[in-house]
Amino acid sequence: MAIPVEAFFLTPDGEGTLQQQVRGMVMQGILSNLFPAGARLPSSRKLAEHLGTSRITVTLAYTDLVASDYLVSRGRSGYFVSESAPRKPEFQLPATSVATATDWSRAIGSRFSGSEIVTRPRNWRDYPYPFIYGQADARLFDHHNWRACALRALSPREFEATTLDQYDQDDPKLVDVVQRHILPRRGIRARPEQILITMGAQNALWMAAEILLTQRRVAVHENPCYPEQRKILERTRCTTVALDVDEGGLDPETLPDRVDVVFTTASHQCPTNVTMPVDRRRRLIELAARRGFVIVEDDYEFEIPDTAAPAPSLKAMDRGGAVVHVGSFSKSLFPGLRLGYLVADEAFIREARSLRALILRHPPGHIQRTAAYFLGLGHYDSQLNRMARAYRRRRAEMDAALRAHGLLHGPDHARGGSSFWIDAGEGVDTSALARNLLADGVVTEPGSVFFSDRPAGRRFFRLGYSSIDSGKIPEGIRRIAARLEQSGCTRP
Amino acid sequence: MAIPVEAFFLTPDGEGTLQQQVRGMVMQGILSNLFPAGARLPSSRKLAEHLGTSRITVTLAYTDLVASDYLVSRGRSGYFVSESAPRKPEFQLPATSVATATDWSRAIGSRFSGSEIVTRPRNWRDYPYPFIYGQADARLFDHHNWRACALRALSPREFEATTLDQYDQDDPKLVDVVQRHILPRRGIRARPEQILITMGAQNALWMAAEILLTQRRVAVHENPCYPEQRKILERTRCTTVALDVDEGGLDPETLPDRVDVVFTTASHQCPTNVTMPVDRRRRLIELAARRGFVIVEDDYEFEIPDTAAPAPSLKAMDRGGAVVHVGSFSKSLFPGLRLGYLVADEAFIREARSLRALILRHPPGHIQRTAAYFLGLGHYDSQLNRMARAYRRRRAEMDAALRAHGLLHGPDHARGGSSFWIDAGEGVDTSALARNLLADGVVTEPGSVFFSDRPAGRRFFRLGYSSIDSGKIPEGIRRIAARLEQSGCTRP
Repeated sequence: MAIPVEAFFLTPDGEGTLQQQVRGMVMQGILSNLFPAGARLPSSRKLAEHLGTSRITVTLAYTDLVASDYLVSRGRSGYFVSESAPRKPEFQLPATSVATATDWSRAIGSRFSGSEIVTRPRNWRDYPYPFIYGQADARLFDHHNWRACALRALSPREFEATTLDQYDQDDPKLVDVVQRHILPRRGIRARPEQILITMGAQNALWMAAEILLTQRRVAVHENPCYPEQRKILERTRCTTVALDVDEGGLDPETLPDRVDVVFTTASHQCPTNVTMPVDRRRRLIELAARRGFVIVEDDYEFEIPDTAAPAPSLKAMDRGGAVVHVGSFSKSLFPGLRLGYLVADEAFIREARSLRALILRHPPGHIQRTAAYFLGLGHYDSQLNRMARAYRRRRAEMDAALRAHGLLHGPDHARGGSSFWIDAGEGVDTSALARNLLADGVVTEPGSVFFSDRPAGRRFFRLGYSSIDSGKIPEGIRRIAARLEQSGCTRP
Repeated sequence: MAIPVEAFFLTPDGEGTLQQQVRGMVMQGILSNLFPAGARLPSSRKLAEHLGTSRITVTLAYTDLVASDYLVSRGRSGYFVSESAPRKPEFQLPATSVATATDWSRAIGSRFSGSEIVTRPRNWRDYPYPFIYGQADARLFDHHNWRACALRALSPREFEATTLDQYDQDDPKLVDVVQRHILPRRGIRARPEQILITMGAQNALWMAAEILLTQRRVAVHENPCYPEQRKILERTRCTTVALDVDEGGLDPETLPDRVDVVFTTASHQCPTNVTMPVDRRRRLIELAARRGFVIVEDDYEFEIPDTAAPAPSLKAMDRGGAVVHVGSFSKSLFPGLRLGYLVADEAFIREARSLRALILRHPPGHIQRTAAYFLGLGHYDSQLNRMARAYRRRRAEMDAALRAHGLLHGPDHARGGSSFWIDAGEGVDTSALARNLLADGVVTEPGSVFFSDRPAGRRFFRLGYSSIDSGKIPEGIRRIAARLEQSGCTRP
């Protein structure tokens, strides 16, 4: 059988190079049993003519297909489908006599769904004024060097490090750069056995809660807080106490008498973005040591190099070892990477390593090695510098526009970060505001999901500036102010 | 200040190209505050001479450092450390007055460590006869095309798909190829909402246990079985029943009266490698539908294309939707990838998606997209074909050698796979055997960890052939037989 040239056609939305597309068409034909073993392929000249490509494109595709055993070459007779070409297996499915449907409402023992937290439309990128938080900005990312590092991690020399099952182990190169390069940025000295790589900060928080909390324990969290933090605590069935934050974040003097674990975002309170002053940090650590509770420090937002000296992390001040430090590369690199780390006492890290091994063994080798190179070669530092410049510009633009429209008053208690937390005033429903603003092309994040008592948070909203152009900020803020004006509510 | 050339030296074990090494030295000097802002770099001519490299190498490294703002170029005056170059922050750490050490034995509420399962030395690659299981073989892996797919997924065009926070969503391209390309290989038709990408098969099994089991439920698992399967079930505090397998795997007629979930490795029983016959599969599904229990099918070992028609998966025969199917790319691609999938009723997948979002959000974007291309472009099929040929050759070698030494008798109840399960006979302690064999350069996996009653498993061991050369098999088996001979124990 000879396969006719008509079996081949290029689609306008075909992906990859022409050579890849030709190869793909042959593979698909063979895998779907359209092209049987022994069938002759059109000559490269004929197929090239038919597709309107160069002959070398077809020849290279055919040669590649010979290497992967889809085709065999018989010299001047041309190319044929290989007798041992890959095939899709075909089954005769034996019938089962019953088809009683399983009752899944009964079969499911624990429910996790139903409390999805949606604060922005999935297609936020389609809006001209996306004041969203926590996504990477392609214009600021050093894609070139990330690619170079990824390529290096893909070299055959790295095959073992990146492809083997590592049981419960991390990539030692990544642990090494975190220890020597990242943690000193936060004032932290740690030994390798006090560090564990995680699938992002959320994964680290979840593990901390699983290890530290039981039904009989008391966890304190900030209010408002990262909504997933509350969900994670709920799962452990421990007693939770929500402590309201003020312009200094969580106040250690307001801690309840009984507490086992305090979860805090001291450096950049989520979502209000305020920084906990040093005296409160010292007090919190003293209380932890004296009363024997553990502090889980969610240091999710990287420290933007600033003119002001950055506040050291809680972990840096912690002599008694009461602090479990959670770090993340989601903000400084990108969230789709899913890499973070835990730094804590060896006894805690040992449990976290075993728990991680149980639920997923270890983070993928290739992304760990790529990150290790990117950090170790200094690209991370340039990346932070570049982001810092852009974020400072954007923050100044935001600050000016928000104040001009009366949306921001008094001192800014935040040190950098990548968002503003706005009080829209008594009576405003920022969820309705957010819906209305979508019609104006503006994406904002309503505040109620961050609060234990959702109605109380209705008047607040978050404006992120990690994904919006500096030049678009004034107009975006103007549109927000105009909508608020319309709603006719009191301003604070 | 002028930085002297003596500040630079190449180390013999330096990694990367010369250009990368030069760049790295400058970056490290700046980041460690050795080279202050405004300091002049040695001329490219001088530094090249000093290092014994070409001048263009130094010039290219300098140019790159200008682009990332470590250096500035002042025309003919040369290169200088940029005023805005990245810096490590320096802290004055405020002292805390207490240093009472936290009592971690009290702070830890749930323990996970202490039951690590070690069946082989971590440095198994250093042994000439590694009969280990489940690791990738660099000689069989299509590294070239994997790299090409990874590179494609790293292109700026794919930035959003691979770097953004996807909340609880998978890469739709990967779900698509799993649905159209992988599941049909196992006889399964599924809609996208019935599929969830996981961090490997173990992650999928863990999620299934978390969702389906509570303290009040009964789980059945095979005995012997994958040791981590038992650990996962123990964590849920459900009642577990271990059912002994025979040459047809798990026997549905031996199921207890009360059962909520059955965990089975029907296609390749782990570790005995036997295949469950079709009549037993049909019976198991009938019982599940009639009695309302759920079957979790761990299809961890990919189907090697064979002369015999592959057995369809349980899920393929499941009309009532009682089967939760777990698949993995660890054996067909490589375990360090950490990718697998769940296929089940939409109600179950919804819970699994929410649970996954809670513990880690989603699998990393780049590895999902890379796998999607590798599968979609047909490289996966060639890869399986190549592995099948090598595994068939190795299995035949293993079979012949094992029979020649009296270590294998009777029919082979396994269909392919990548290991043999050997009964060393009454009284043999295969843990001691494994230790002795290490001295002979042979790595084997003793059997007791697979059994609920560990002593009962002492006489068995597993011999994997996914990481050993076909040519080395006869000598490796000879050494095993010789050690067994020495031990003087009865053979079965």
